[in-house]
Amino acid sequence: MRLPVFVWFLALLITGVTVAADPLHDRAKQLFEPIPTPPPAMPGEAATPEKLALGKMLYFDPRLSESHDLSCSSCHNISMGGGDGRSSTPGQLGGRKVATVLNAVFNKSQFWDGRAATLKEQVLKSVMANPRALLNTRGGPSMITLAEMEISRQHAVDELKSIPGYVEAFKQAFPEEADAITYDNIGKAIALFEATLITPDSPFDRWLEGDETALNVKQKQGFAIFVDKGCSNCHNGVNIGGNQFARFGLVQSPGPEFRPPDDRGRFEVTKNIDDNYVFKVPTLRNIELTAPYFHSRRGTDLKQAVAVMARSQLGQELTNDEIDSVVEFLKSLTGRQPEVVLPILPPSVTSQSRPQP
Amino acid sequence: MRLPVFVWFLALLITGVTVAADPLHDRAKQLFEPIPTPPPAMPGEAATPEKLALGKMLYFDPRLSESHDLSCSSCHNISMGGGDGRSSTPGQLGGRKVATVLNAVFNKSQFWDGRAATLKEQVLKSVMANPRALLNTRGGPSMITLAEMEISRQHAVDELKSIPGYVEAFKQAFPEEADAITYDNIGKAIALFEATLITPDSPFDRWLEGDETALNVKQKQGFAIFVDKGCSNCHNGVNIGGNQFARFGLVQSPGPEFRPPDDRGRFEVTKNIDDNYVFKVPTLRNIELTAPYFHSRRGTDLKQAVAVMARSQLGQELTNDEIDSVVEFLKSLTGRQPEVVLPILPPSVTSQSRPQP
Repeated sequence: MRLPVFVWFLALLITGVTVAADPLHDRAKQLFEPIPTPPPAMPGEAATPEKLALGKMLYFDPRLSESHDLSCSSCHNISMGGGDGRSSTPGQLGGRKVATVLNAVFNKSQFWDGRAATLKEQVLKSVMANPRALLNTRGGPSMITLAEMEISRQHAVDELKSIPGYVEAFKQAFPEEADAITYDNIGKAIALFEATLITPDSPFDRWLEGDETALNVKQKQGFAIFVDKGCSNCHNGVNIGGNQFARFGLVQSPGPEFRPPDDRGRFEVTKNIDDNYVFKVPTLRNIELTAPYFHSRRGTDLKQAVAVMARSQLGQELTNDEIDSVVEFLKSLTGRQPEVVLPILPPSVTSQSRPQP
Repeated sequence: MRLPVFVWFLALLITGVTVAADPLHDRAKQLFEPIPTPPPAMPGEAATPEKLALGKMLYFDPRLSESHDLSCSSCHNISMGGGDGRSSTPGQLGGRKVATVLNAVFNKSQFWDGRAATLKEQVLKSVMANPRALLNTRGGPSMITLAEMEISRQHAVDELKSIPGYVEAFKQAFPEEADAITYDNIGKAIALFEATLITPDSPFDRWLEGDETALNVKQKQGFAIFVDKGCSNCHNGVNIGGNQFARFGLVQSPGPEFRPPDDRGRFEVTKNIDDNYVFKVPTLRNIELTAPYFHSRRGTDLKQAVAVMARSQLGQELTNDEIDSVVEFLKSLTGRQPEVVLPILPPSVTSQSRPQP
């Protein structure tokens, strides 16, 4: 009876050695990391249950927009891969694709042009952007996020101070502060909640961690192409992107249909001509959930997006088979989506700060 | 040792008799019913886990609007008492207050003018209203719901058929139907999900069921005023409203600031002059969560709403103390809010049916 156990042990050992000796797997481990669970703490800011509960309420509260129409979740929809799936933004002249909130905590900077270093900064810049301030900072009326939630800092704070349930929730979340409802604390609480929105356990992550069966043959082929052709030069790390900038059109222009000439990307932040059409490399996690693609939202599906990227960034024409394999690999990046119970928001007691008809 | 037990038993018996003999409680039980748990089955339609899962996805899916901006939940926000808390509707010329989806299953008809008999009919009329059809049915361009989700029946069906995840979800929800993605089934699934959105266990319900401590003294005083003054003539039954129609301004006009002259209510459905300014009596459940008030959304807070209603419907001027007590009673109608985990929506595979910029 002991022999079979020994044989099994030996088999396991051999399998383990096989995995470790798989050169594809070795390269993968050099280039990528699985999503850590639990998620890492935000630098300088410890989450408490009270802060997270407050952040979740604020994330879903349309009263943080001037019109009371839009909450964070209106565009960063957790039901839809953390984006909005739209080809255009209502009430705005164009605008960039909504960046997913899922795993955004792992990005080295936020926004397509990297103009926010942290999640908190991103929240405060987009949620409560003072249009005038933004206009002044960024130099002109062509700015992308001008119209996001369009609420002034003071109005956001006043609005929340008029709601007794928020007065209590901020007190509990920031017990050490006498005047807890501040612009900064709004950003802190939302950012802490957003940092919980991660999608671990994708097939790719399970494969990275040693489960050889987590990817099928086609997905492994696709991954090999992804690395061999050079996609992973930019799309790497824990977010398979999100940690560097690159020109869209590094080798050849993707054309105005995918890269409209009036959005010059990071140039609009730095005014450095080297940053012309430079954008943050987006995460590829959950990419099958977040069409349409590119900062311009002009890529209709994953096959097209892969072909366009190979051509414009790497100067390569992929075969249909290669594209299919890469797309299958990309689908292995879909992780376990966050399970979020809708918060119950505290009611406004009067409509003084409600927008009137 | 047996004597104390007997004494306790006797005390319990006496307490029970006291509750039963409380005339206020007796009147309450004649006029009202607590929310039943589990919720009642929808007539002619059995819920299955698959139908409910599908209905929840559809409820949260903005792809059921022509612009991909609005889902049911955009306006019937489960986080906000099932309404939207807004004084106006974006992109529309006015429009009535959003009726709460919470406990809507207990209403005898749907919409402020009762033009839908069932939840399913309400869903199909507002979610996928064919603007032309509505225009023809209701006779003119002043119609209220014209602009809701503005998607045609055919487009809604085509949109869902283009999403593989929905093809599968409809197949599982309606396994007996070869062509499961139909306009009617969309309405069925959403209505079944909506029927789960009930708020049992309010303090008032617990008091109705015999827990004398569930209401405080002021709330009991408020309830006595609510019944004595005649509020419960219209606001009664399981939904404390929702089961009859009444003219807003039965005794005297509430004035154009609360009853704008261009919305004639049920008259617009029946063309019967007796229905001029007649509206469905709304539920008062969770009323503290759903300001602003009235079909016009012009009532800023509960105190004002109670005063206006007493004057216009009953010809009574309530004292401040009476108003305060009634408001305290109304707050006892807030029940346990639904705990809804956000669904994960199936992705669109191409953007063919996405609205273009």
